[in-house]
Amino acid sequence: MKLRNLKPSDYTAISPLIDEWWGGRKMSHLLPKLFFDHFNDTSFIVEKDGDIIGFLIGFLSQTSSDKAYIHFVGVDPKYRKFNVGRQLYNTFFDQVKQNDRHSVHCITSPVNKTSIAFHLKMGFLIEGGDKEIDGVYVHSDYDSPAEDRVLFMKRI
Amino acid sequence: MKLRNLKPSDYTAISPLIDEWWGGRKMSHLLPKLFFDHFNDTSFIVEKDGDIIGFLIGFLSQTSSDKAYIHFVGVDPKYRKFNVGRQLYNTFFDQVKQNDRHSVHCITSPVNKTSIAFHLKMGFLIEGGDKEIDGVYVHSDYDSPAEDRVLFMKRI
Repeated sequence: MKLRNLKPSDYTAISPLIDEWWGGRKMSHLLPKLFFDHFNDTSFIVEKDGDIIGFLIGFLSQTSSDKAYIHFVGVDPKYRKFNVGRQLYNTFFDQVKQNDRHSVHCITSPVNKTSIAFHLKMGFLIEGGDKEIDGVYVHSDYDSPAEDRVLFMKRI
Repeated sequence: MKLRNLKPSDYTAISPLIDEWWGGRKMSHLLPKLFFDHFNDTSFIVEKDGDIIGFLIGFLSQTSSDKAYIHFVGVDPKYRKFNVGRQLYNTFFDQVKQNDRHSVHCITSPVNKTSIAFHLKMGFLIEGGDKEIDGVYVHSDYDSPAEDRVLFMKRI
């Protein structure tokens, strides 16, 4: 496995993979081309035998000089047990620390129990919300109307 | 009319406006909450009598230290002749110049003739593409599969 920075030309390969890896859910609209052009130093790809098997797209907050944000992470379902996600997150943490950022933020859907478990295992805390679902704090209507989200934060 | 920086709490007001201003086209997914949290110093709102009548969301490229990017601009159709867009763009140019950026980039759909005309009037150049539609260079499959885009660039 090889980890490297994201390049603009990775868009053509990754965009069709997204809907496939998410089991046909239409997700690729969440990753317009701009994310492949303007945040390359904090976005990463894992390849195996020349194929992309995972990616992380994140950036340094322009507004909050101590914060970094992870927007989108995808791992090929065939490689879910190979610590690809962990490796991508740890690389992101190292990179943003070099940019003097000490808090990393991301969000997930409350139905995505695998993602919630993963973030807790990676040391993220769940930020307080306005309601609770299955013991987890949730922010109602956070991202698009009627889209609840769990908010994560990790100090690094 | 009052122009100010975008705040995270503007999300709740703007997200439902988008689909309305675009005549029912589903566009609000292009503006997830993250754009309201992390790029506030380069994103702006125009208000009239307390109502939002226009907004611009842009950022400084993290990868290219000379570039800035305008992601999304919306103007209430009732105020299309009031130079709201021009005012937002000029404010963005001033702000990013202060951050030592001298090239501004954005994209639009080739069917959006009003947007193409507006950008040309604002002094943007159209970047060369792989095909031509109605005399305009277009990049095929640029943003999501089968979504062609016109690419604009302006030196400031």
